[in-house]
Amino acid sequence: MVSQVLNGIAASDGIAIAKSYRLVAPDLSYSKTKITDVDAEVTRLSNALVRAKQTVAQIKANAVKSMGAHEAAVFDAHLEILSDPELIKQIVRLIRDSRFNAETALTSVTDDYIDMFQNMRDNSYMQGRASDIQDVTKRVMANLLGVTLPNPALIDHEVIVVAHDLTPSDTAQLDRRFVKGFITDVGGRTSHSAIMARTLEIPAVVGVGDATDAINDGETLIVDGLHGQAVQQPTEAEVAKFQHLAADYTAQRIEWRRLKFAPSLTKDGVSHLITANIGTPADLQAVLDNGADGIGLFRSEFLYMDADNWPTEDQQFSAYRDVVAKLGDQPVVVRTMDIGGDKGLSYLQLPDEMNPFMGYRAIRISLNRTDIFRTQLRALLRASAYGNLWIMFPMIATLPELRQAKQIYREERQKLIAASIPVGEVRLGMMIEVPAAAVLADQFAKEVDFMSIGTNDLIGYTMAADRTNERVSYLYQPYNPSILRLIKNVIDACHREGKVAAMCGEMAGDQIAVPILIGMGLDEFSMSASSILKTRALFRRLDSTQMVDLANRAINAETNEAVIRLVDETVF
Amino acid sequence: MVSQVLNGIAASDGIAIAKSYRLVAPDLSYSKTKITDVDAEVTRLSNALVRAKQTVAQIKANAVKSMGAHEAAVFDAHLEILSDPELIKQIVRLIRDSRFNAETALTSVTDDYIDMFQNMRDNSYMQGRASDIQDVTKRVMANLLGVTLPNPALIDHEVIVVAHDLTPSDTAQLDRRFVKGFITDVGGRTSHSAIMARTLEIPAVVGVGDATDAINDGETLIVDGLHGQAVQQPTEAEVAKFQHLAADYTAQRIEWRRLKFAPSLTKDGVSHLITANIGTPADLQAVLDNGADGIGLFRSEFLYMDADNWPTEDQQFSAYRDVVAKLGDQPVVVRTMDIGGDKGLSYLQLPDEMNPFMGYRAIRISLNRTDIFRTQLRALLRASAYGNLWIMFPMIATLPELRQAKQIYREERQKLIAASIPVGEVRLGMMIEVPAAAVLADQFAKEVDFMSIGTNDLIGYTMAADRTNERVSYLYQPYNPSILRLIKNVIDACHREGKVAAMCGEMAGDQIAVPILIGMGLDEFSMSASSILKTRALFRRLDSTQMVDLANRAINAETNEAVIRLVDETVF
Repeated sequence: MVSQVLNGIAASDGIAIAKSYRLVAPDLSYSKTKITDVDAEVTRLSNALVRAKQTVAQIKANAVKSMGAHEAAVFDAHLEILSDPELIKQIVRLIRDSRFNAETALTSVTDDYIDMFQNMRDNSYMQGRASDIQDVTKRVMANLLGVTLPNPALIDHEVIVVAHDLTPSDTAQLDRRFVKGFITDVGGRTSHSAIMARTLEIPAVVGVGDATDAINDGETLIVDGLHGQAVQQPTEAEVAKFQHLAADYTAQRIEWRRLKFAPSLTKDGVSHLITANIGTPADLQAVLDNGADGIGLFRSEFLYMDADNWPTEDQQFSAYRDVVAKLGDQPVVVRTMDIGGDKGLSYLQLPDEMNPFMGYRAIRISLNRTDIFRTQLRALLRASAYGNLWIMFPMIATLPELRQAKQIYREERQKLIAASIPVGEVRLGMMIEVPAAAVLADQFAKEVDFMSIGTNDLIGYTMAADRTNERVSYLYQPYNPSILRLIKNVIDACHREGKVAAMCGEMAGDQIAVPILIGMGLDEFSMSASSILKTRALFRRLDSTQMVDLANRAINAETNEAVIRLVDETVF
Repeated sequence: MVSQVLNGIAASDGIAIAKSYRLVAPDLSYSKTKITDVDAEVTRLSNALVRAKQTVAQIKANAVKSMGAHEAAVFDAHLEILSDPELIKQIVRLIRDSRFNAETALTSVTDDYIDMFQNMRDNSYMQGRASDIQDVTKRVMANLLGVTLPNPALIDHEVIVVAHDLTPSDTAQLDRRFVKGFITDVGGRTSHSAIMARTLEIPAVVGVGDATDAINDGETLIVDGLHGQAVQQPTEAEVAKFQHLAADYTAQRIEWRRLKFAPSLTKDGVSHLITANIGTPADLQAVLDNGADGIGLFRSEFLYMDADNWPTEDQQFSAYRDVVAKLGDQPVVVRTMDIGGDKGLSYLQLPDEMNPFMGYRAIRISLNRTDIFRTQLRALLRASAYGNLWIMFPMIATLPELRQAKQIYREERQKLIAASIPVGEVRLGMMIEVPAAAVLADQFAKEVDFMSIGTNDLIGYTMAADRTNERVSYLYQPYNPSILRLIKNVIDACHREGKVAAMCGEMAGDQIAVPILIGMGLDEFSMSASSILKTRALFRRLDSTQMVDLANRAINAETNEAVIRLVDETVF
C-alpha cells in the first residue's frame, strides 16, 4: 500500500489520525421494469424486509443504550411498518398482478401512503408517519439494490467522517466523543461543515473534490486542518511526522492560551476588540474560555428554529438576559431575526422562491411581520437593563428600511418606559451585507451607532455567486479587491461619523484578511471563539502603520490571488 | 354596473379597449380518495375522456387553418393517447380493483408512463411523448374537476389578455393579430410580459395585484399603458375619454416618427448613440423602422434556445452575418451565450441550484465548456468580415475570467487568419452586471474596448433582490443612489481610459433615468426598438450641462423616491 495525499481547503485547525467513516448516501435509483418470475421477485422483497428489520432492531438496541428507551421509541414505529400486513400485501399484489419489479412496486405503494399522510396538513402526528415510511422505504430499497446505508448513530469508535458535504441534520446526529475530524468533497471555509468543525474544535479539510470516491470505509486517515491535506493509508514515517506536527500545534495552543486575559493590541499598541460569534447560550462557555472581549454577533435564530411556534417575549427575554448578564460590562451585539434564505421555520409559511438568497428574509420579514419584530424588540429592551446590549438589524438595503426599524424600536422603548419597565442604554446598528448599503455607507453611518460587516453574504452578492453552490464557489473570493474596497468604504464612512466599524463574517478571523483589516482601522473583529486567541497572537506581530500601506496596496491589486501573495510577502 | 379602476405599473405605452381574455391556469389539485360506486366513477372517467377528445379535435381544426396540417400533427398524437385502449384499461382497473377515485387512478397510471418516457434520455421522440401525455392528462383532469383550461390557440377575436404572469411559452402561442394588450397580477417593467409587450408595441399594465381575481372573462376592459391603469366595465364617458387619449398618443407617435432619421442630439448639441436590443433576427424590422443608431445588444440565446442541439458554427455564422450585413456601418454588439439563471436548454444538463441567479450561467458556462464557446467565437469572427461587429462577454466578475475569454478569442482569431478566412476589426467588451466588476471598473476598463451596463442584473445583485420575486420586487430600485454611484463609477472609468460606456438594461430607455445618464456622459443607450424615438425626442429637451448637475445631486440623494422627485422637478 502506498500512501496518498488529498488536497483541499483548511477549514478548521488541528491534526487527527483515525479510521475513516464514509457518511455517503448511496444511489437508490432503480429501473422500472416488468419481471417474469413472480415468485422469485416476492422472495427478493421478503428477504429485503427481513434484513431491514434486523438492522432496525440493532439500531434500536444501540439507541436505547445511548439515549434511553424514550428516544428510541421511533424505531418501534419503523419495525411496525416493516411488519404491516396490509402494506406488504399491496406491494406483493402489484408484483403479482402488474408484474412490476419489487423496487417499482415498493415505491408505488409507499408513495401513496406518504402522499396521503403528508396531505394531512394539520396533523403533525400523521406528517411524522410520512417521514417514518420514507425512512423505512429507503432501508428496504437499499437492501433490494444491495447497497449500504451509512448510519451515524452506529458510530462507536474514533473516526474521521468522510462525506460529500455535511448537513445540519447530519452533524446533529454525530457523537462528539467519537468524531475526530471531517473531510468533505465540497464546501469552503464558510460552509456549514467548516463552521461546525471550528465550533467543535476538531480538524477539518473541505472541498477535496473526490474524497468520497478515493477513500474507502475503515482506512487509516490523517486529517491536517492546518494545511488542508488528508493522507490516506499513511506510512509509519508519515504517522510519526504528523504526530510531531500535532504536538507542535498543541504547544502553540498552550502558548496562545497565555493570551487569554491579554488585551487585543497590535505590535505598536493600537487596541481593537476581538469578540465572539455565538449561535446559542450554550456557546457561552467557549467565549469565556477563549478570553473574548465581548460578543460581536449573537444570532437570535436558535430561539425561533428550536421551537414549534413563535417564542414568547418572556422566553426571549430570559435567553437574552442570561447572556448579557454573564458578560457584565462587555458588549453583546444581538442580531434580530435572520430567517429566510436557507433558514426556514416549521410554523412560518415562506413563499417558494427561485432565488431565496435574494428573497424574503431577515429584516424584510421583520418589517412585514411587525408583530413578531415588536415582540423581539421588547424582549431585547427588557434584557438591556441587565448589561451592555447592542441591537443590529440584518439585510438592510435602503434608508427607509433602517428608519422604519428604528421607528418601531423607539415606539417599543417608549411604551416600556411609560410602563416603568427598566431599559438600559442600547446602541443601535445594522449589518452591512447588501452591496447597496456598503456603497451608501456614508449616508447610513449618519443614522446608526455602529455597523457590522457580514462578509459571507456581502461577498456572495458582490460576486453574484452562491457560496453553497460548488459550481461557482471559486468566485467566493474574500480578498477580491472589489470586496476590500467596499469594506474600506464602510470603515471610512463609520470613522468620518465617529461610529464603530465591526465585522462579524468569517473574514474577521481569517489570517490573510486580519492584517488588511488592521490597516483599514476596523474597530471590532467578531469570530468563532476558537479563532480568538490565534488572532490575538497575530495582532501582536502586526505594526498598524505598515498595515495601512498593505491595505492601500491590496485595494489596488488586481485579483484575489494577488492579495494573498501581497499579505504572504508582507506579513508571513 | 359601475366601472372599476385597477392600478398597476405602466409597462408598455399605448391605450387599448377590448374584451378580456383570462389566461389563468386552473387549480388541478385533487383529493386522493377511495370511492364506493365503482361504475359511476368509471362513467365519470369516460365522460371526461370524451369531452377532452372533442376539445382537442376543435383545437386541431383551428390549428390546421392557422398553421397548416404539418404543425397541427401534434394534436393527432393527443387524440391517439385519449383513445389508447391499454392506457384506459389500466386506469379503469385501478378504479375497480383499488377503488381509487378517477383523478387518483388517472394520475397514477399516466405518471408511470411519463416517468418511463422521460427516463429514455437519449431518445428525444420518447421525451416528446412524455410531454404529450402530460398535456392530455391535464385536459382530462380539468374535465374531471369541472374547471376550464384556457387555450391561447383558440383566441379568434380582439382581446386584452389577463394573466397572473405571462411565460415565454404563453406569449409564443398568442396570435399577434388578436391580442391588443396585457394586464398581469405580478411583474415590473423588466418582467418578461413587459418586455414582450414593448416588443409587440401593445399597451400593458403589470403588477396589478389582483387582476385575475377582479376581472371575469369577456368583460369590456380599457388598458392604459401610459398611466398604468385598467378600467373594468367602463362607462360611455370613460370610453370616450380614453379614445381621446389614444388619439393624442397616436398624434405624439406621429410627431416622434419625424425623428426617425434625425441624429441623437441633446438640446445643446451633444451626440450620443441610441441603439436597439434584439432577441432574434426577426426583430430587425422594428430596429430599422425606428431609426436606431445600431444594435447595442444582440442576445445570442435564440440560437441555442430554439434548437434541439448545439447550433453549428455555420448556423450561427449565417444568423450573425445577416444582421451585421443589414446594419452596414452601424455597430452590432453581440453578447455571447447567456444561458443559465432562468434560461435552460433541453440538451444541456444544468445543475439543480438553490439560487440560479447566483449560479452557473453565462460566461461561467462558456469558460467551462470552451468547445461551445470556441464555436460561437469562430462564427462571430467570420461574420465580422461583413460589417461592424462588436462582441461582449456577459456576467464577468473577475479579471482572470475576462483575460481567459480574450485569450480564447485571440486563439480562434489567429486560427482563422492562418486559414486565410476573412475576419473584420472586432471591438471586444464586457457586460457590467456583477457588482464586483462595477466596483473594479477602473481595472477592467484598461482591458476592454467598451463596457455595457446590464442594469437588470446589476440592480438585482446590488439590492440583493430577485426582481421576479413579488415579495421583494419593491427593492428593485433603478434610481437607488447606490446603483447610480456604481453606474457613474463605470462611466468615469471608461472615459479615463478613452473607452465607450454603454448601457443595455431596461434603464437605458427609462424616462427618469435618461436625464441622469446624459448628465453622467453615457455614450450609448440601448433599448427596446419601440422606445427609441420617444427617447430621441426626450434628448432634444435636455441640456447636458444642467444634467451634469442633476446627476451629481442624484448620487447624493438618499432614496429611489427622492431621485424620482429630483428628475421630475428638474426636467418634467
